[in-house]
Amino acid sequence: MPYTYEYPRPALTVDCVVFGFDDEALKLLLIQRGIDPYKGSWALPGGFVRMDETTETAAMRELEEEAGVSDIYLEQLYTFSEPNRDPRDRIVSVAHYALVKLSDHRVTAATDAEDVGWFPADDPPPLAFDHAKILSIARDRLRAKVRYQPVGFELLPTKFTLRQLQHLYEVVLGRELDKRNFRKKVHSLGILKALDEYETGVSHRAAQFFKFDRAKYRQLEKKGFNFEI
Amino acid sequence: MPYTYEYPRPALTVDCVVFGFDDEALKLLLIQRGIDPYKGSWALPGGFVRMDETTETAAMRELEEEAGVSDIYLEQLYTFSEPNRDPRDRIVSVAHYALVKLSDHRVTAATDAEDVGWFPADDPPPLAFDHAKILSIARDRLRAKVRYQPVGFELLPTKFTLRQLQHLYEVVLGRELDKRNFRKKVHSLGILKALDEYETGVSHRAAQFFKFDRAKYRQLEKKGFNFEI
Repeated sequence: MPYTYEYPRPALTVDCVVFGFDDEALKLLLIQRGIDPYKGSWALPGGFVRMDETTETAAMRELEEEAGVSDIYLEQLYTFSEPNRDPRDRIVSVAHYALVKLSDHRVTAATDAEDVGWFPADDPPPLAFDHAKILSIARDRLRAKVRYQPVGFELLPTKFTLRQLQHLYEVVLGRELDKRNFRKKVHSLGILKALDEYETGVSHRAAQFFKFDRAKYRQLEKKGFNFEI
Repeated sequence: MPYTYEYPRPALTVDCVVFGFDDEALKLLLIQRGIDPYKGSWALPGGFVRMDETTETAAMRELEEEAGVSDIYLEQLYTFSEPNRDPRDRIVSVAHYALVKLSDHRVTAATDAEDVGWFPADDPPPLAFDHAKILSIARDRLRAKVRYQPVGFELLPTKFTLRQLQHLYEVVLGRELDKRNFRKKVHSLGILKALDEYETGVSHRAAQFFKFDRAKYRQLEKKGFNFEI
Protein backbone atom coordinates (compact mmCIF):
# COMPACT_ATOMS: atom_id res chain seq x y z
CA MET A 1 0.00 0.00 0.00
CA PRO A 2 1.60 3.26 -1.07
CA TYR A 3 1.66 6.38 1.11
CA THR A 4 0.80 9.72 -0.45
CA TYR A 5 1.73 13.21 0.71
CA GLU A 6 1.08 16.68 -0.63
CA TYR A 7 4.76 17.63 -0.45
CA PRO A 8 7.81 15.43 -1.00
CA ARG A 9 9.40 13.98 2.14
CA PRO A 10 12.91 12.71 2.80
CA ALA A 11 13.15 9.21 4.20
CA LEU A 12 14.41 9.09 7.78
CA THR A 13 16.99 6.61 9.04
CA VAL A 14 19.22 6.09 12.05
CA ASP A 15 22.86 5.03 12.18
CA CYS A 16 24.69 3.67 15.21
CA VAL A 17 28.33 4.24 16.10
CA VAL A 18 29.08 1.72 18.83
CA PHE A 19 32.58 1.92 20.28
CA GLY A 20 33.78 -1.08 22.25
CA PHE A 21 36.59 -1.00 24.81
CA ASP A 22 38.38 -4.32 25.23
CA ASP A 23 41.23 -3.44 27.65
CA GLU A 24 43.54 -3.12 24.70
CA ALA A 25 42.02 -0.93 22.05
CA LEU A 26 38.99 0.98 20.90
CA LYS A 27 36.86 -1.07 18.55
CA LEU A 28 33.96 -0.18 16.28
CA LEU A 29 30.90 -2.32 15.57
CA LEU A 30 30.26 -2.79 11.85
CA ILE A 31 27.95 -4.88 9.73
CA GLN A 32 28.60 -6.12 6.24
CA ARG A 33 25.82 -5.07 3.90
CA GLY A 34 23.89 -7.93 2.32
CA ILE A 35 22.03 -5.76 -0.17
CA ASP A 36 22.75 -2.96 -2.60
CA PRO A 37 23.80 -0.22 -2.59
CA TYR A 38 27.26 -0.97 -1.26
CA LYS A 39 26.55 -4.70 -1.12
CA GLY A 40 29.50 -6.42 0.58
CA SER A 41 30.77 -3.16 2.09
CA TRP A 42 31.09 -2.59 5.80
CA ALA A 43 28.76 -0.03 7.32
CA LEU A 44 27.41 1.30 10.59
CA PRO A 45 24.35 -0.60 11.79
CA GLY A 46 21.15 1.33 11.09
CA GLY A 47 17.91 1.50 9.18
CA PHE A 48 14.61 3.23 8.64
CA VAL A 49 12.70 4.88 11.48
CA ARG A 50 9.17 3.57 11.94
CA MET A 51 6.21 5.90 12.38
CA ASP A 52 5.62 4.93 16.00
CA GLU A 53 9.14 5.17 17.36
CA THR A 54 11.63 7.85 18.32
CA THR A 55 15.02 7.80 16.63
CA GLU A 56 16.54 6.43 19.87
CA THR A 57 14.10 3.50 19.85
CA ALA A 58 14.77 2.90 16.16
CA ALA A 59 18.52 2.91 16.76
CA MET A 60 18.23 0.33 19.54
CA ARG A 61 15.92 -1.85 17.46
CA GLU A 62 18.25 -1.77 14.46
CA LEU A 63 21.25 -2.64 16.62
CA GLU A 64 19.44 -5.66 17.91
CA GLU A 65 18.10 -6.68 14.49
CA GLU A 66 21.32 -6.25 12.58
CA ALA A 67 23.98 -7.10 15.13
CA GLY A 68 22.19 -8.96 17.91
CA VAL A 69 23.24 -6.28 20.37
CA SER A 70 20.87 -5.07 23.08
CA ASP A 71 20.94 -3.11 26.34
CA ILE A 72 23.03 -0.27 25.00
CA TYR A 73 22.45 3.29 26.05
CA LEU A 74 22.81 5.35 22.88
CA GLU A 75 23.26 9.10 22.84
CA GLN A 76 22.18 11.19 19.90
CA LEU A 77 25.19 12.40 17.94
CA TYR A 78 24.16 14.48 14.93
CA THR A 79 21.69 14.52 12.06
CA PHE A 80 23.15 14.16 8.58
CA SER A 81 21.11 15.76 5.84
CA GLU A 82 23.28 16.40 2.78
CA PRO A 83 20.85 15.93 -0.13
CA ASN A 84 23.10 13.45 -1.97
CA ARG A 85 24.45 11.43 0.92
CA ASP A 86 22.57 8.30 -0.15
CA PRO A 87 22.42 7.17 -3.80
CA ARG A 88 19.00 5.55 -3.37
CA ASP A 89 16.95 8.51 -2.38
CA ARG A 90 16.88 11.67 -0.32
CA ILE A 91 17.59 10.14 3.10
CA VAL A 92 18.23 12.04 6.31
CA SER A 93 19.94 10.07 9.05
CA VAL A 94 20.03 10.68 12.78
CA ALA A 95 23.27 9.20 14.11
CA HIS A 96 23.64 7.87 17.65
CA TYR A 97 26.69 6.66 19.51
CA ALA A 98 27.74 4.66 22.55
CA LEU A 99 30.83 3.42 24.32
CA VAL A 100 30.48 -0.08 25.76
CA LYS A 101 32.58 -2.80 27.29
CA LEU A 102 33.25 -5.10 24.39
CA SER A 103 33.11 -8.31 26.40
CA ASP A 104 29.54 -7.50 27.48
CA HIS A 105 28.27 -7.65 23.93
CA ARG A 106 28.43 -10.73 21.80
CA VAL A 107 27.43 -9.89 18.23
CA THR A 108 25.60 -11.96 15.62
CA ALA A 109 24.71 -10.97 12.07
CA ALA A 110 20.98 -10.79 11.41
CA THR A 111 18.55 -8.99 9.05
CA ASP A 112 20.14 -7.45 5.97
CA ALA A 113 23.61 -8.08 7.35
CA GLU A 114 25.99 -10.63 5.83
CA ASP A 115 28.36 -10.43 8.70
CA VAL A 116 29.08 -8.37 11.76
CA GLY A 117 32.20 -7.65 13.75
CA TRP A 118 34.40 -5.37 15.82
CA PHE A 119 37.08 -3.42 13.95
CA PRO A 120 39.82 -1.02 15.06
CA ALA A 121 37.93 2.27 15.53
CA ASP A 122 40.82 4.32 14.20
CA ASP A 123 41.56 2.03 11.26
CA PRO A 124 38.31 0.51 10.00
CA PRO A 125 37.73 -0.94 6.51
CA PRO A 126 36.31 1.44 3.86
CA LEU A 127 32.78 2.32 4.91
CA ALA A 128 29.57 2.64 2.87
CA PHE A 129 27.70 5.93 2.32
CA ASP A 130 29.01 8.87 4.39
CA HIS A 131 29.71 6.57 7.32
CA ALA A 132 33.40 7.53 7.48
CA LYS A 133 32.27 11.09 8.14
CA ILE A 134 29.77 9.98 10.78
CA LEU A 135 32.48 7.88 12.45
CA SER A 136 34.88 10.81 12.43
CA ILE A 137 32.36 13.07 14.17
CA ALA A 138 31.54 10.37 16.72
CA ARG A 139 35.24 9.80 17.38
CA ASP A 140 35.73 13.54 18.01
CA ARG A 141 32.70 13.67 20.28
CA LEU A 142 33.97 10.74 22.34
CA ARG A 143 37.40 12.34 22.67
CA ALA A 144 35.80 15.61 23.79
CA LYS A 145 33.44 13.90 26.19
CA VAL A 146 36.15 12.49 28.44
CA ARG A 147 37.35 16.02 29.01
CA TYR A 148 34.11 17.09 30.68
CA GLN A 149 32.63 13.88 32.04
CA PRO A 150 34.15 10.98 33.95
CA VAL A 151 34.48 7.73 32.02
CA GLY A 152 35.13 4.19 33.14
CA PHE A 153 32.31 3.15 35.40
CA GLU A 154 30.79 0.75 32.90
CA LEU A 155 34.08 -0.09 31.19
CA LEU A 156 36.52 -1.13 33.91
CA PRO A 157 36.21 -3.96 36.41
CA THR A 158 34.81 -2.91 39.83
CA LYS A 159 38.35 -2.89 41.21
CA PHE A 160 41.00 -1.45 38.94
CA THR A 161 44.52 -0.05 39.07
CA LEU A 162 45.48 3.47 38.05
CA ARG A 163 47.40 1.93 35.18
CA GLN A 164 44.17 0.40 33.88
CA LEU A 165 42.32 3.69 34.22
CA GLN A 166 45.07 5.58 32.44
CA HIS A 167 45.09 3.00 29.67
CA LEU A 168 41.34 3.50 29.16
CA TYR A 169 41.86 7.25 28.78
CA GLU A 170 44.76 6.67 26.41
CA VAL A 171 42.68 4.36 24.25
CA VAL A 172 39.77 6.81 24.10
CA LEU A 173 42.00 9.82 23.47
CA GLY A 174 44.21 7.93 21.06
CA ARG A 175 47.47 9.15 22.59
CA GLU A 176 49.81 8.45 25.47
CA LEU A 177 49.47 10.43 28.68
CA ASP A 178 52.02 11.50 31.24
CA LYS A 179 51.62 9.20 34.24
CA ARG A 180 52.26 11.73 37.00
CA ASN A 181 50.10 14.40 35.46
CA PHE A 182 47.28 11.97 34.80
CA ARG A 183 47.26 10.71 38.38
CA LYS A 184 47.26 14.22 39.79
CA LYS A 185 44.29 15.23 37.64
CA VAL A 186 42.32 12.08 38.31
CA HIS A 187 42.84 12.32 42.06
CA SER A 188 41.75 15.96 42.00
CA LEU A 189 38.37 14.87 40.63
CA GLY A 190 37.64 13.11 43.91
CA ILE A 191 35.87 10.15 42.30
CA LEU A 192 38.36 7.45 43.33
CA LYS A 193 38.35 5.39 46.52
CA ALA A 194 41.60 3.67 47.36
CA LEU A 195 41.15 0.07 48.50
CA ASP A 196 43.35 -1.78 50.92
CA GLU A 197 44.07 -4.34 48.21
CA TYR A 198 46.98 -4.84 45.85
CA GLU A 199 47.63 -6.79 42.70
CA THR A 200 49.01 -10.28 43.26
CA GLY A 201 51.15 -12.51 41.10
CA VAL A 202 52.66 -9.70 39.06
CA SER A 203 56.35 -9.38 38.25
CA HIS A 204 56.34 -5.58 38.60
CA ARG A 205 55.59 -3.75 41.85
CA ALA A 206 52.06 -4.68 42.92
CA ALA A 207 49.70 -1.79 42.21
CA GLN A 208 46.96 -0.68 44.53
CA PHE A 209 43.34 -1.23 43.57
CA PHE A 210 40.80 1.56 43.40
CA LYS A 211 37.10 1.76 42.87
CA PHE A 212 34.88 4.62 41.84
CA ASP A 213 32.96 6.57 44.44
CA ARG A 214 29.63 5.95 42.78
CA ALA A 215 27.80 8.96 44.24
CA LYS A 216 30.59 11.41 43.37
CA TYR A 217 31.01 9.87 39.93
CA ARG A 218 27.31 10.29 39.12
CA GLN A 219 27.35 13.81 40.49
CA LEU A 220 30.30 14.75 38.30
CA GLU A 221 28.68 13.06 35.33
CA LYS A 222 25.71 15.39 35.71
CA LYS A 223 27.57 18.51 36.64
CA GLY A 224 30.54 18.08 34.33
CA PHE A 225 33.93 19.50 35.13
CA ASN A 226 36.23 21.73 33.13
CA PHE A 227 36.25 25.47 33.23
CA GLU A 228 34.46 25.97 36.53
CA ILE A 229 33.56 29.62 36.93
CA MET B 1 0.87 16.85 -7.38
CA PRO B 2 0.99 14.24 -4.63
CA TYR B 3 4.12 12.32 -3.70
CA THR B 4 3.89 8.59 -3.21
CA TYR B 5 6.18 6.28 -1.25
CA GLU B 6 6.18 2.56 -0.53
CA TYR B 7 6.56 3.12 3.23
CA PRO B 8 5.16 5.92 5.37
CA ARG B 9 7.52 8.82 6.05
CA PRO B 10 7.57 11.39 8.82
CA ALA B 11 7.62 15.01 7.72
CA LEU B 12 10.90 16.79 8.51
CA THR B 13 11.09 20.29 9.94
CA VAL B 14 13.65 22.56 11.56
CA ASP B 15 13.27 24.83 14.59
CA CYS B 16 15.57 27.69 15.54
CA VAL B 17 16.48 28.77 19.05
CA VAL B 18 18.12 32.18 18.63
CA PHE B 19 19.42 33.74 21.83
CA GLY B 20 20.17 37.44 21.74
CA PHE B 21 22.50 39.24 24.15
CA ASP B 22 21.65 42.90 24.64
CA ASP B 23 24.16 43.97 27.37
CA GLU B 24 21.44 43.50 29.94
CA ALA B 25 19.78 40.16 29.52
CA LEU B 26 19.46 37.04 27.45
CA LYS B 27 16.61 37.25 24.97
CA LEU B 28 14.90 34.67 22.79
CA LEU B 29 13.58 35.21 19.26
CA LEU B 30 9.96 34.11 18.87
CA ILE B 31 7.31 34.39 16.19
CA GLN B 32 3.58 34.51 16.71
CA ARG B 33 1.87 31.82 14.68
CA GLY B 34 -0.57 33.09 12.05
CA ILE B 35 -2.03 29.68 11.30
CA ASP B 36 -3.37 26.67 13.14
CA PRO B 37 -2.42 24.66 15.08
CA TYR B 38 -1.54 26.99 17.93
CA LYS B 39 -2.72 30.04 15.96
CA GLY B 40 -1.84 33.15 17.97
CA SER B 41 0.69 31.29 20.14
CA TRP B 42 4.34 32.18 20.27
CA ALA B 43 6.74 29.65 18.83
CA LEU B 44 10.31 29.12 17.71
CA PRO B 45 10.87 30.11 14.08
CA GLY B 46 11.01 27.06 11.83
CA GLY B 47 9.39 25.12 9.05
CA PHE B 48 9.61 22.25 6.60
CA VAL B 49 12.91 21.10 5.11
CA ARG B 50 12.99 21.14 1.29
CA MET B 51 14.31 18.23 -0.70
CA ASP B 52 17.37 20.09 -1.94
CA GLU B 53 18.61 21.61 1.30
CA THR B 54 20.38 20.49 4.45
CA THR B 55 18.67 21.16 7.76
CA GLU B 56 21.17 23.99 8.41
CA THR B 57 20.19 25.66 5.12
CA ALA B 58 16.51 25.17 5.90
CA ALA B 59 16.94 26.70 9.36
CA MET B 60 18.65 29.78 7.94
CA ARG B 61 16.00 30.15 5.23
CA GLU B 62 13.16 29.88 7.73
CA LEU B 63 14.77 32.43 10.03
CA GLU B 64 14.95 34.87 7.16
CA GLU B 65 11.45 34.11 5.90
CA GLU B 66 9.71 34.23 9.25
CA ALA B 67 11.71 36.78 11.19
CA GLY B 68 13.70 38.72 8.62
CA VAL B 69 16.92 37.59 10.28
CA SER B 70 19.95 36.64 8.22
CA ASP B 71 23.68 36.07 8.63
CA ILE B 72 23.37 33.89 11.68
CA TYR B 73 25.64 30.93 12.26
CA LEU B 74 23.40 28.18 13.60
CA GLU B 75 24.66 25.08 15.32
CA GLN B 76 22.70 21.87 15.30
CA LEU B 77 21.21 21.21 18.73
CA TYR B 78 19.18 18.00 18.77
CA THR B 79 16.58 16.11 16.76
CA PHE B 80 13.16 15.74 18.34
CA SER B 81 11.22 12.69 17.24
CA GLU B 82 8.53 11.86 19.81
CA PRO B 83 5.72 10.40 17.65
CA ASN B 84 3.04 12.72 19.07
CA ARG B 85 4.99 15.96 19.36
CA ASP B 86 2.94 17.66 16.64
CA PRO B 87 -0.89 17.33 16.46
CA ARG B 88 -0.94 17.68 12.66
CA ASP B 89 1.11 14.71 11.67
CA ARG B 90 4.16 12.65 12.48
CA ILE B 91 6.77 15.40 12.30
CA VAL B 92 10.44 15.07 13.23
CA SER B 93 12.23 18.34 13.89
CA VAL B 94 15.94 19.10 13.82
CA ALA B 95 16.55 21.99 16.21
CA HIS B 96 19.38 24.49 15.74
CA TYR B 97 20.59 27.27 18.01
CA ALA B 98 22.67 30.42 18.01
CA LEU B 99 23.79 33.20 20.31
CA VAL B 100 23.89 36.62 18.65
CA LYS B 101 24.30 40.24 19.54
CA LEU B 102 20.76 41.49 19.66
CA SER B 103 21.50 44.93 18.24
CA ASP B 104 22.93 43.32 15.07
CA HIS B 105 19.60 41.79 14.18
CA ARG B 106 16.50 43.79 13.47
CA VAL B 107 13.51 41.49 13.16
CA THR B 108 10.39 41.73 11.00
CA ALA B 109 7.46 39.36 10.85
CA ALA B 110 7.05 37.66 7.48
CA THR B 111 5.56 34.43 6.04
CA ASP B 112 3.20 32.57 8.35
CA ALA B 113 4.10 34.83 11.27
CA GLU B 114 1.70 37.38 12.75
CA ASP B 115 4.37 39.02 14.77
CA VAL B 116 7.95 38.53 15.86
CA GLY B 117 9.94 39.70 18.84
CA TRP B 118 12.62 39.20 21.46
CA PHE B 119 11.47 37.81 24.82
CA PRO B 120 13.27 37.07 28.09
CA ALA B 121 14.93 33.71 27.42
CA ASP B 122 14.31 32.49 30.95
CA ASP B 123 10.74 33.73 31.14
CA PRO B 124 9.13 33.46 27.70
CA PRO B 125 5.38 33.33 26.99
CA PRO B 126 3.78 29.85 26.74
CA LEU B 127 5.19 28.19 23.63
CA ALA B 128 3.51 26.09 20.93
CA PHE B 129 4.23 22.37 20.37
CA ASP B 130 7.17 20.99 22.40
CA HIS B 131 9.06 24.24 21.99
CA ALA B 132 9.44 24.77 25.74
CA LYS B 133 11.35 21.49 25.85
CA ILE B 134 13.50 22.47 22.87
CA LEU B 135 14.23 25.82 24.52
CA SER B 136 15.18 24.14 27.77
CA ILE B 137 17.68 21.87 26.03
CA ALA B 138 19.13 24.80 24.08
CA ARG B 139 19.44 26.83 27.29
CA ASP B 140 21.33 23.97 28.96
CA ARG B 141 23.59 23.57 25.95
CA LEU B 142 24.44 27.26 25.93
CA ARG B 143 25.21 27.19 29.66
CA ALA B 144 27.47 24.17 29.17
CA LYS B 145 29.18 25.63 26.13
CA VAL B 146 30.68 28.60 27.97
CA ARG B 147 32.45 26.14 30.22
CA TYR B 148 34.48 24.63 27.41
CA GLN B 149 34.65 27.37 24.79
CA PRO B 150 35.35 31.08 25.03
CA VAL B 151 32.38 33.36 24.42
CA GLY B 152 32.15 37.06 23.73
CA PHE B 153 33.98 37.74 20.50
CA GLU B 154 30.84 38.45 18.52
CA LEU B 155 28.85 39.75 21.50
CA LEU B 156 30.95 42.44 23.15
CA PRO B 157 32.31 45.67 21.67
CA THR B 158 35.88 45.43 20.37
CA LYS B 159 37.10 47.13 23.55
CA PHE B 160 35.42 46.03 26.75
CA THR B 161 35.92 46.09 30.51
CA LEU B 162 36.20 42.99 32.69
CA ARG B 163 32.90 44.04 34.25
CA GLN B 164 31.23 43.79 30.84
CA LEU B 165 32.79 40.39 30.18
CA GLN B 166 31.70 39.09 33.58
CA HIS B 167 28.20 40.40 33.00
CA LEU B 168 28.01 38.49 29.72
CA TYR B 169 28.97 35.27 31.51
CA GLU B 170 26.46 35.99 34.26
CA VAL B 171 23.69 36.52 31.73
CA VAL B 172 24.50 33.32 29.85
CA LEU B 173 24.92 31.27 33.03
CA GLY B 174 21.93 32.89 34.70
CA ARG B 175 23.69 33.47 38.01
CA GLU B 176 26.08 35.88 39.67
CA LEU B 177 29.78 35.14 39.73
CA ASP B 178 32.49 35.97 42.21
CA LYS B 179 34.49 38.86 40.77
CA ARG B 180 37.94 37.83 41.95
CA ASN B 181 37.52 34.21 40.98
CA PHE B 182 36.12 35.12 37.56
CA ARG B 183 39.02 37.44 36.77
CA LYS B 184 41.57 34.86 37.81
CA LYS B 185 40.04 32.19 35.60
CA VAL B 186 39.58 34.46 32.63
CA HIS B 187 43.15 35.73 32.80
CA SER B 188 44.42 32.16 33.02
CA LEU B 189 42.86 31.45 29.62
CA GLY B 190 45.31 33.85 28.02
CA ILE B 191 42.81 35.25 25.53
CA LEU B 192 42.74 38.84 26.83
CA LYS B 193 44.99 41.70 25.80
CA ALA B 194 45.08 44.65 28.20
CA LEU B 195 44.88 48.01 26.43
CA ASP B 196 46.45 51.22 27.63
CA GLU B 197 42.98 52.79 27.72
CA TYR B 198 40.53 53.43 30.51
CA GLU B 199 36.86 54.29 30.79
CA THR B 200 36.11 58.00 30.83
CA GLY B 201 33.24 59.98 32.31
CA VAL B 202 32.30 57.34 34.88
CA SER B 203 31.56 58.08 38.52
CA HIS B 204 33.25 54.90 39.78
CA ARG B 205 36.95 54.15 39.36
CA ALA B 206 37.69 54.09 35.60
CA ALA B 207 38.11 50.50 34.46
CA GLN B 208 40.74 49.35 32.02
CA PHE B 209 39.75 48.24 28.54
CA PHE B 210 40.66 44.86 27.13
CA LYS B 211 40.33 43.20 23.78
CA PHE B 212 40.43 39.56 22.77
CA ASP B 213 43.61 38.09 21.37
CA ARG B 214 41.93 36.88 18.21
CA ALA B 215 44.42 34.12 17.38
CA LYS B 216 44.40 32.67 20.89
CA TYR B 217 40.64 32.98 21.10
CA ARG B 218 40.13 31.03 17.87
CA GLN B 219 42.67 28.45 18.96
CA LEU B 220 40.87 27.94 22.26
CA GLU B 221 37.54 27.81 20.46
CA LYS B 222 38.81 24.86 18.45
CA LYS B 223 40.75 23.12 21.16
CA GLY B 224 38.35 23.75 24.02
CA PHE B 225 39.51 24.00 27.59
CA ASN B 226 38.41 22.15 30.70
CA PHE B 227 39.83 18.94 31.98
CA GLU B 228 43.11 18.97 30.08
CA ILE B 229 44.78 15.60 30.45
